[in-house]
Amino acid sequence: MQTLIIIDQQEGIDHPKLGARNNPDAERVMLKLLAKWRKQGWPVVHVIHRSTEPDSVFWPHEAGFMLKAAFQPVGDETLLEKSVPCAFTNNRLAETLTQLGSDELIIVGVATNNSIEATARTGGNLGYKVWVVADACFTFAKHDYFGTPRSADEVHAISLANLDGEYATVINSDAIETTNAKVATQ
Amino acid sequence: MQTLIIIDQQEGIDHPKLGARNNPDAERVMLKLLAKWRKQGWPVVHVIHRSTEPDSVFWPHEAGFMLKAAFQPVGDETLLEKSVPCAFTNNRLAETLTQLGSDELIIVGVATNNSIEATARTGGNLGYKVWVVADACFTFAKHDYFGTPRSADEVHAISLANLDGEYATVINSDAIETTNAKVATQ
Repeated sequence: MQTLIIIDQQEGIDHPKLGARNNPDAERVMLKLLAKWRKQGWPVVHVIHRSTEPDSVFWPHEAGFMLKAAFQPVGDETLLEKSVPCAFTNNRLAETLTQLGSDELIIVGVATNNSIEATARTGGNLGYKVWVVADACFTFAKHDYFGTPRSADEVHAISLANLDGEYATVINSDAIETTNAKVATQ
Repeated sequence: MQTLIIIDQQEGIDHPKLGARNNPDAERVMLKLLAKWRKQGWPVVHVIHRSTEPDSVFWPHEAGFMLKAAFQPVGDETLLEKSVPCAFTNNRLAETLTQLGSDELIIVGVATNNSIEATARTGGNLGYKVWVVADACFTFAKHDYFGTPRSADEVHAISLANLDGEYATVINSDAIETTNAKVATQ
């Protein structure tokens, strides 16, 4: 059983202070996958970030904390909070997956090099079979440690390369078969 | 109390198949820090990788698994094994740090974007105060997810930027004061 894990689709992710992003179509791809999972009755876990820092775009006392309307859970979908990038830390994600009988994770959301990468690394380390959907994730431009500006695409591409084959399998959404939950491995 | 954690200083890390590395001086910097920690009697944890994959440079039935001579533990230093990149997974690192009364970690070793980054991310997520010493880590060139070749320095610099300020504080070894274990925060 493959669980779709959608990370940090909260209003604050659109705050201009986060800078230039990539994959402008990522939300549409996420929603396409979400619709598929719902149609099939497969498990969905929504993870949101409850920041402990007042200047975060996910500070819970401001509107940025709110889940975007299109990403509200329905039915028996699970909603979990995290307060650090890794979605397995200090919540019931692992217990939820056990209850669902699911040890295969399809991870989508934001940001590729932060909560996506942290969650996929931990998932892989813990022994889950993890897929990260490249076109259903996005991130932001930043400077590297030596001060060189890096585009969001560069940050995204190196993050996915860190994950692929080591902690997870990175795929595009079109590699997810239309008839069942089994991701086509490459 | 700050614990020096030295990761994967095993013979196999020099295998030519790993490709071009950066920071050729990193081992000398690690050994300088190790000598300082020993002189002061501060805690040291050595972590080695016991791979489950026969083609790994750290496959335990070949010489690549051996700790390098200069990095052998002495006295009451702790030696732990891991079989995934994160040094906190499926071993006694967390319990060891509790026994040492240490919630501050100075991480050095290899590879910056793999075991170093995974361990520093988990350490930060778990609430430890983590420093990663940039000039005491190194990594290897690789292609990013879109196929663009990236130098070891590029991979290193983006990895450290992912960590710095989010999971850890990235410093150079010269920021570690000479008289006590307190890392100078910036």
